[in-house]
Order: sequence, then C-alpha cells, then structure tokens
Amino acid sequence: MPIYKAPVEDTLFLLDNVVGYEKYGNLPGFGDASRDVVEAILNEAGKLAEEVLQPINLSGDREGCKRTVDNGVETPKGFKEAFRAYTEGGWLGLSFPARYGGQELPHVLSSAVSEYTSAANMAFAMYPGLTAGAVAALLAHASDDIKTAYAPRMIEGRWTGTMNLTEPHCGTDLGLLKTKAVPQADGSYLITGQKIFISAGEHDLAENIVHLVLARIEGAPAGVKGISLFVVPKFEIGADGAPGKRNGVSLGSLEHKMGIHGNATCVLNYDDARGWLVGEANKGLAAMFVMMNEARLGVAIQGLGQSEVAYQNAAAYARDRLQGRALTGAKAPDKPADPIVVHPDIRRMLLEMKAFNEGARALMLWTALEADVLHRSPDEAQRKAADDHLGLMTPVLKAMFTDLGFQNAVKAQQVFGGHGYVGEWGVEQFVRDARIAMIYEGANGIQALDLVGRKLPKDGGRAVMAFFKTAGDLAKQFEADEAMKACAAQQTKSIGNLQQATMWLMQNAMKNPDNAGAASTDYLRLFGLVALGHMWLQIMKAAQDRRGDAGMAEKMDARFATGKFFFERMAPETSLRLQRIVTGADTMMSVPADMF
Amino acid sequence: MPIYKAPVEDTLFLLDNVVGYEKYGNLPGFGDASRDVVEAILNEAGKLAEEVLQPINLSGDREGCKRTVDNGVETPKGFKEAFRAYTEGGWLGLSFPARYGGQELPHVLSSAVSEYTSAANMAFAMYPGLTAGAVAALLAHASDDIKTAYAPRMIEGRWTGTMNLTEPHCGTDLGLLKTKAVPQADGSYLITGQKIFISAGEHDLAENIVHLVLARIEGAPAGVKGISLFVVPKFEIGADGAPGKRNGVSLGSLEHKMGIHGNATCVLNYDDARGWLVGEANKGLAAMFVMMNEARLGVAIQGLGQSEVAYQNAAAYARDRLQGRALTGAKAPDKPADPIVVHPDIRRMLLEMKAFNEGARALMLWTALEADVLHRSPDEAQRKAADDHLGLMTPVLKAMFTDLGFQNAVKAQQVFGGHGYVGEWGVEQFVRDARIAMIYEGANGIQALDLVGRKLPKDGGRAVMAFFKTAGDLAKQFEADEAMKACAAQQTKSIGNLQQATMWLMQNAMKNPDNAGAASTDYLRLFGLVALGHMWLQIMKAAQDRRGDAGMAEKMDARFATGKFFFERMAPETSLRLQRIVTGADTMMSVPADMF
Repeated sequence: MPIYKAPVEDTLFLLDNVVGYEKYGNLPGFGDASRDVVEAILNEAGKLAEEVLQPINLSGDREGCKRTVDNGVETPKGFKEAFRAYTEGGWLGLSFPARYGGQELPHVLSSAVSEYTSAANMAFAMYPGLTAGAVAALLAHASDDIKTAYAPRMIEGRWTGTMNLTEPHCGTDLGLLKTKAVPQADGSYLITGQKIFISAGEHDLAENIVHLVLARIEGAPAGVKGISLFVVPKFEIGADGAPGKRNGVSLGSLEHKMGIHGNATCVLNYDDARGWLVGEANKGLAAMFVMMNEARLGVAIQGLGQSEVAYQNAAAYARDRLQGRALTGAKAPDKPADPIVVHPDIRRMLLEMKAFNEGARALMLWTALEADVLHRSPDEAQRKAADDHLGLMTPVLKAMFTDLGFQNAVKAQQVFGGHGYVGEWGVEQFVRDARIAMIYEGANGIQALDLVGRKLPKDGGRAVMAFFKTAGDLAKQFEADEAMKACAAQQTKSIGNLQQATMWLMQNAMKNPDNAGAASTDYLRLFGLVALGHMWLQIMKAAQDRRGDAGMAEKMDARFATGKFFFERMAPETSLRLQRIVTGADTMMSVPADMF
Repeated sequence: MPIYKAPVEDTLFLLDNVVGYEKYGNLPGFGDASRDVVEAILNEAGKLAEEVLQPINLSGDREGCKRTVDNGVETPKGFKEAFRAYTEGGWLGLSFPARYGGQELPHVLSSAVSEYTSAANMAFAMYPGLTAGAVAALLAHASDDIKTAYAPRMIEGRWTGTMNLTEPHCGTDLGLLKTKAVPQADGSYLITGQKIFISAGEHDLAENIVHLVLARIEGAPAGVKGISLFVVPKFEIGADGAPGKRNGVSLGSLEHKMGIHGNATCVLNYDDARGWLVGEANKGLAAMFVMMNEARLGVAIQGLGQSEVAYQNAAAYARDRLQGRALTGAKAPDKPADPIVVHPDIRRMLLEMKAFNEGARALMLWTALEADVLHRSPDEAQRKAADDHLGLMTPVLKAMFTDLGFQNAVKAQQVFGGHGYVGEWGVEQFVRDARIAMIYEGANGIQALDLVGRKLPKDGGRAVMAFFKTAGDLAKQFEADEAMKACAAQQTKSIGNLQQATMWLMQNAMKNPDNAGAASTDYLRLFGLVALGHMWLQIMKAAQDRRGDAGMAEKMDARFATGKFFFERMAPETSLRLQRIVTGADTMMSVPADMF
C-alpha cells in the first residue's frame, strides 16, 4: 500500500529560512497567522491529507466514478465522508474573505495545504480546488447579488464549482466556441451547447453544482471578443436561496480516462439552461482568466504533490528492498542482499526527485506569498512588482512543475521495477494521475507560448528584467561564500544562458514569430531551471546557517548535498536548452505538413 | 480510433540504402531472401499488423485478460483468431532452422516484422515473441530430444513459451532465488516455488505452454552459481508427443497492471511440477541469457514500435485538428482555424519522434544484420566482430529505445491535448503499454550497468574501440560533404564527448566503482545518441543520393531535414551527458540512506 507523509517540516523550514514569511507580517490577514498558528494549521492539514484523503486514493482509482440510473454520478467510497471532513474543517474557506464565510488567512497557507491534499489524493482534491477557483472568479467579477447568493454556500462546501470552456471542436482556441446564450426578459440567459472534459461536472458530494460557462450571446462578435461568462447552477436558486428547480444542464457522458478516476470528468449538455452573466458581456475570457490563473497555479501544485508522494514511496522502497550488493562491497552483510538505496543509479533518481521537490516547494511558496502581496498590500509599487512576478511565474510553474512532476512519478515507478507496473503499490497510479496536469488548464506548450509571446515582452520586459536582477545579485553574492562558490558560479552561468536566450528571442522573434514558437518550450524550461537554482542557493545558505541547531546537522547536510546535486547534474541543462533555442525554426518549418 | 500503417517503405529504404542489405547476400539463408522476397514478406507482415492485429489492440486493452472458473485465462476477443492467422502465416518460424519447421530466413526480416506487430498490438505480439525467445534458448542449450519434442510444435504455434525468472523477493538479483528442483530417478526434476510477473503465463491461445524456469537443484551452491534452467510444460508430453497429463504448475493470480492488458501477466505456482534440465546443471543463467538477449532486442523493438504508432497517430491528428492560427498568419484562411501542424512547438514534438523512429529503425536493422552474421557467417573474425557489436548494442538499444519510445508516446499524447488523456483515441494506451518496456527484461538502470561494467571493459575495450573507429571515420568522411558538414561536425563532437566519458570511466571507475554506477545511465544515453547520429549521417547521405529518383525529392528532403533536426536539437545532449558523468558519485553517495 502506498504511503504519504505531509512534508510539514520542509514547508516550515522554507517559510522560516528561505522565503522569509515573517517579512510579510504587515500584510492584512497575516496578523492572524502567527508562526504558531501557521504550524498548527499545517499540522492539521497534514493529518487530513494523511489520515482522511490518502487512504481512499488507491481505492478511489480502482473504483472510479459511476454513472447512476438517474443520470447522476456516484463518487468512490469514502469521498462523501472525506468531503464533509474537508469542508467542515473549514479548508475551503481558508483564504477567502470573512464576509463570505472565509478565514481570510494568507494565500500561501492554502497553497501549502493544497500541496498536501493533492499529493494525498489528486482526484479528490480537485472537487474543492475547482470550487475555490470558481469562488475566486465570482468574487472578482460577479455582481454583489451573485456573490452573496453563491460564495458563502460554495465556501461552506454545500455547493461546488466547475469551469466550462472546452467544446468538442475547441480547447485551446476558444474563439471557435459555439455554445450560445439567449437573453431573457428577466435578465437571465438561456444557454445551449455541449461542453466536454468538465472536471467535477456531476457528482454526489454537494447539494448543488455551480457551473461557470463560457458562451456566446446571440449576435455577439465572432472570435474571442464575443465570449461571455455565465454562472449556471445545476439547480436554480429559489427565493429562499436554496437549490430549487432542476436546470437544463445534464450529464452527457462520463469520460473513460487514463487516470484521476476518482474525479468525474463529464460531457455536459446545456439545453436552454438558465444562466446569469458574470462581469460584462463579451468580456468573459478576462473573467474566466481569474479562475484559470488560479487553476494554473493549482495545477502546478498538483505536479509538485504527485512528485513528492511518488518520491516518498520510491525512497521507502529503496531503503527496504533487498537486491544485489553495493558496487563497493556489501553494506548489509548480515542480510541476504543490500537495500537498493546503496546503488548510485537509484540515488541519482531519488536525488533528481528530491532536488526538484524541495526547490519547487520553495518557488511555489515564494510565488504564493507574492500573490498575497498582490491581493493585500496597500503599496501600489509592491503590488505591481508582485503582479509582474506572478504573470511571469504562472506559466513557468504550471509547465515545469507538471512536466517534472510526471517525469518524477515515472522515475519513482522505475525504482520499484516490476512492482511499479502493477497496481498494488499504487505508484503506477501516480503516473496516470500526474499525466493530466501537463494537459489541462492550458497544455504546457501553450504555457510556453504565453511566457515567450506575452509575459516576456509585456511592459518592455520589466518583469523579466527585475527577475534577472534579483537572481543575478543573489548568485553574485554567494560566489563569495567558499562552500557555495561552485554552485553559485553554475547559477551565474545558468542566468547568463537565460539572458542570451532572451536576447536571441528579442532579435529573432520579431523578424520571424516561428522562432519564438520553436524556442518556447526550451525557453520555459531554461527559465524554470534558473528559478529553481535561485531557490536552491537560498536553501543551501539556510542549511548552512541552521546546521548548528540541536540535532539538525545531518538533515541540513542532506539539504546542502541535494542542492549541490542540483547544480552539478540538473542546472547544466540550461546550456543545452540555450543551444537548442538558437537553432531557430527554419529546419522544423521546412518539412511540408504532409511529410509528417 | 487509432491508426497504424507499417513503415514498410522506410524499412526498405534503410535496407537498400543505409545498412546495405545486399552486402550480406553471401550469408547462408540470404540467398532465399532476395530483394523481391524481402519486399513481399514485409508487405505481407504489414498487412497482418494493420488488418489483423491493430484492430484488436484498443479492444484488447479495454477487455483485458480474464481468469476463468477452471483457473485458466481467457484472452480478449479476437486474440485466438489473430494468433491462428499469425502462426498459420508461418511468422513464428520465419528465421528458425528448416529442420524444426522454420523458414531459415534472415533474422533481420523477423526483426522488421516484429516492429510492425509490436506497434500494432504490443500485448498480442508478446505471445509469439516469448515463444520465439524460448525456442531460441532451447535450440542453443537443450538436448536433441528436447529440441525435437518442443521446437517444431512451438514454431508451429501449437505451443507457446514463457520465461520464469522473477520471484516475489528477487528480480534483478537472481542469486536470491528459492525455487527448488529435486532430481527424480527418471532423470526429470520436481520443481517447487513461486514465480511472478510471468508474461503469457496462462492463456487460451495454444494447446500447451512451455515454461522455461530457473530453479536451484537441491544442494546446489548458493547465489547465481547454483541456478539451473528447466523446461516445464503445462501438460506433460506423452509418448505420442502430444500434451498429456496436467503438470503441477498452476495460475496463482493475474496481475492488475498499468498496461499490456491483453497479455496475461501471471503469478505461477510450481508444486512438484515435472521439469527437464536444459543445458548443464548450475549453468542455468548462461542458458537463460540466450533467451534474455533475444528478448532484450525484442523489447527494444517494442519501444520503437510504440514510438512509431504513437507518432503516426499524433501526426495525423496534427494535420487534421483545426485550432488557432499560425504565428506567421493564417495558413488555411478558408477554414475556421489552421491545422495544429503549423505550430513550431507541435513540429518540434513530431520531429523529435520522427528523428528517433527513423534513426532507431536503421540502428535496429544494422544490429539485426549483425546477429545474422554472428549466427550464420563461416568467417570467425566476422563472427567475433558481430558478437562484439551485439554485446555492446544490446543494452544500448534496450534502454534507449524503450526510454525514448515511452517518452515519445507521452509526446504524442501531448499533441492530442485533452483527447490524448481519454481512452477513445487510443493514444493513452500507447503510453501505458510502452511503460513496461523500460522495466522488464532487465530494468534500464541494469542495462546501463551492463554496458558500463561488463560490455565496455570486455576484451580490453575491443568492441567499443571498434565502434569509435567506425563512427569516427564516417563522421570525418562526411565533414568533407558541403551539405552535411555541420551535422558531421556535431557528430564528431558527440563522438569526442563519448570518448572523453569513456576515458573518464577508465580513470575513475577503478578507484571507485560507484563512479561507474553514477555515470551509467548518462553514459548509455550518450552512447545511444552517438549510435543514432552514426545512422543519421548515413540516412542523410542516402537521401541526397536518392533525391533525383522520380517523385522522391520531397520525401528525401524531409528525411534530410529530419537528420538536420537531429543534429541541431538532439545530438547536443551528448555534451550535457558528459558534463553530468564527470561530476562523479561523491555528492550522491554523501547522503545517508535515512535522509531520503
């Protein structure tokens, strides 16, 4: 059976020593979240993940969601009880405004919590995760009436949320969408069309399901400028605020998919379903983007979570499984064989995972704190800088965390050998579950285009220049530290590679936009490796600083060695990425389409 | 529904223009396989793959194998008929000796055929594939009585074969195996123990199942030096040569696994099952290695096959799916959107797959031809050189083809976006099926250790030196060709990286064997990339030479461009691999086991 232990200790180490949680203490809401409160909350969340969610992960995968005779969906055994535990614990409202029933605690806390819940049970965590995303979109764009009618019940977890973008003929290119909305005399709209791949689209966890739906108001302009956002509840809201009449949205089918079997992925048919406009007409995409950006960071966290849980299982197996002898002679001569953790190639895989997990966790926490600054700081300059940071990092985290999260699940599976391919150890489930995160909420290729085409040139490159300066200064500073010299020098080199790639893009993407497309995926990974390096230098410094704490030497040395491994074996990939980028698009564009 | 077209045209192109099939014409058996015969056979095999095997691939996955009430296994619908078509077509005996009912045709032909059948239906192709491996082991090591009793019926496909190595507590480390064999007065042995992960261990395709089983004769030495190989038929062979009394081997359970659902992966319980020794007592591992080496190349071919079929589906989808517009302006202005093949990042993924598939196919055909030389040449020096080549290339092909085969299936899935994650397009099945090939027949980490620890130092490095010379001479030669200069220069650089890595290993693995382990996976990939580059230079040259053939210009240009892509974007990875290798084992070994 798979195991999971929430990495609360590492989260706290990073908050305290790397991302400087205490520096944010003046932000509204942070006063209620003292260091003690943070620790208590993370411990509680860890317990929830370990004791409630993880035990129903494997069974949820085996059992899957089932269509019921009355066209509903039955979630796997235990999901209902777990959802009750989750919502009654107040986890859904952790960072939402108090006036809607939330606890207004820092966003960084809900991000940390969501790592644990996603790691323990990704399919489950999507139900509350999508609900939180939908609430965020409503709070940002809906009328006060809609906010008041929906937000409190969703935060309570009595109702859940979904996002409805994709149609059979369009996913990435929403300009093609056909679902139509016909205005009614009472201000509502009747929505008709078909949406596919709707996560949590139908289930038995809540009294109502609140669909956020992109549709085209009759007569609206073609393309993305004619798309509006609607809130369409499964049951219309009665005068008493409670769910009433069944709305015209119904389950078309349940998708048969590779993983996340515990989450119901639905085809939803809208047939004159009553909906209400959220935000302005024809500005639906902008409104939906609030939910999408939220969701993209959530998906990045899923990648990290799957990588962490896969790593933990692989590490435990490697310490346990006796097979062969160390190349340098028996390490456990009293046993029939040595544990496979003695083998360098097993350690290589474990360290690749560990170096990603700890660096990515730091990067995620830093980014989440910047989201808190953006939403809470009274200082406009601070907010602007935070907005720049988020804009830049959102595609990087989404794509890199999910690519590496998946690859790490595959690596963990490799550590298990044949036992990784069969179901009982649960590790093949991590691979199947993690795979979707590279695809949904904007496939990773789209994230790379977003980074290169939009985020990089925005405001004359202000965001990326600020990041280069921050990262460059830090690397220079640590080059003076004897123990970290070589690592800092590699980081300086990585930053140089990134700057050269950026320069190349500035010079070559203008004259041929295909050069940007051809470079995009390599550029995003190069960027991400620099960002991980930026975190690792700080983690290594913190590990040195805390090495003298009672009983901490071995742990801190392991952190330091993991950082060294990152700079020796992973950061050099930045040179390869640069080399690929500067070859441009010519070769790949020269092949006629029908020669593929 | 997924598609598949056997790449007969590319196989023939490579045989004719790259690996020089005609040069091997003097080998015994090649006379019967003129160029026309080869083409006819490949076309027939293509039809079998496309029309018989591929149509039951997706349904076979969905349906899976089922345990029957009488403790047998029912294969998915259509598998029985397909197996009959396969065996009646004589495909199992293609390269086996005529005296046992085979057609004695070149091994390179059965390798090409097995690419097609594995691509079309990997789970199915394992039944005949394992049978062929078992026949090869029997022909190499069994007594004449056993050969005569088993080989003809297996080649006919009336009986199938399996290999039984793994036990619950040992896979890689066979020295730990416990299954015991007790000698009987009649010369047979009674075998008792449990074997797991036995592919094709029980099914309804054949009259009998011939298990090759590793076990320890009572009183034999501990470790690998006390292991013997036995043939254990499901039904004992009667005096008339037909299956008679049920033997003491029975199905323990069917594994619930990630993929290859159409193949029955079994736990087999041996309880005083009657078996006969194959080869000498206590030399079982050497005898089994015939089957394992055969199987390793077969598994490499599975990796290639899955990559090819995944690529074909992704390419078709990319040409078809309308979504968004080209960055350089609409390419299909008459349609609502452009096909996604206009996007550089989609082309990047397709070309990474295509460059692997065509280069790997050439490498596979070359290696298969060397196997023909080894088994058929009257010239001892030739045979020795071929043996060197095979020893070196077997781990490289097994690990690189399956790693990249899997990664390419994942890439193909990415091209499909959300449609790649749901079952109906079949592409997620390629991912799940391809995954096992990295694990079985020696996990890829073991292949890397085999290369670095055994194959490299063997005979004072004779094999690797010969390969360096062949590859180096070719690259130098093409540096003089204006059109190929840059690519040949990259290949020279790649070879230099490989030589430096080899030198580093020679200098550092002796003083600390962990340095070899820490380098092994990177070294294998570096080696594999050089081998692919060696093939690509030859393919590019052939493409230039054949460009003037009627109607061939566009196809040959596409081949040439794919080669250029390989050298621009994929070959530079050799520098990264070298850089990783020379960091050594110190950092990874410094972390205490309990810090993982």
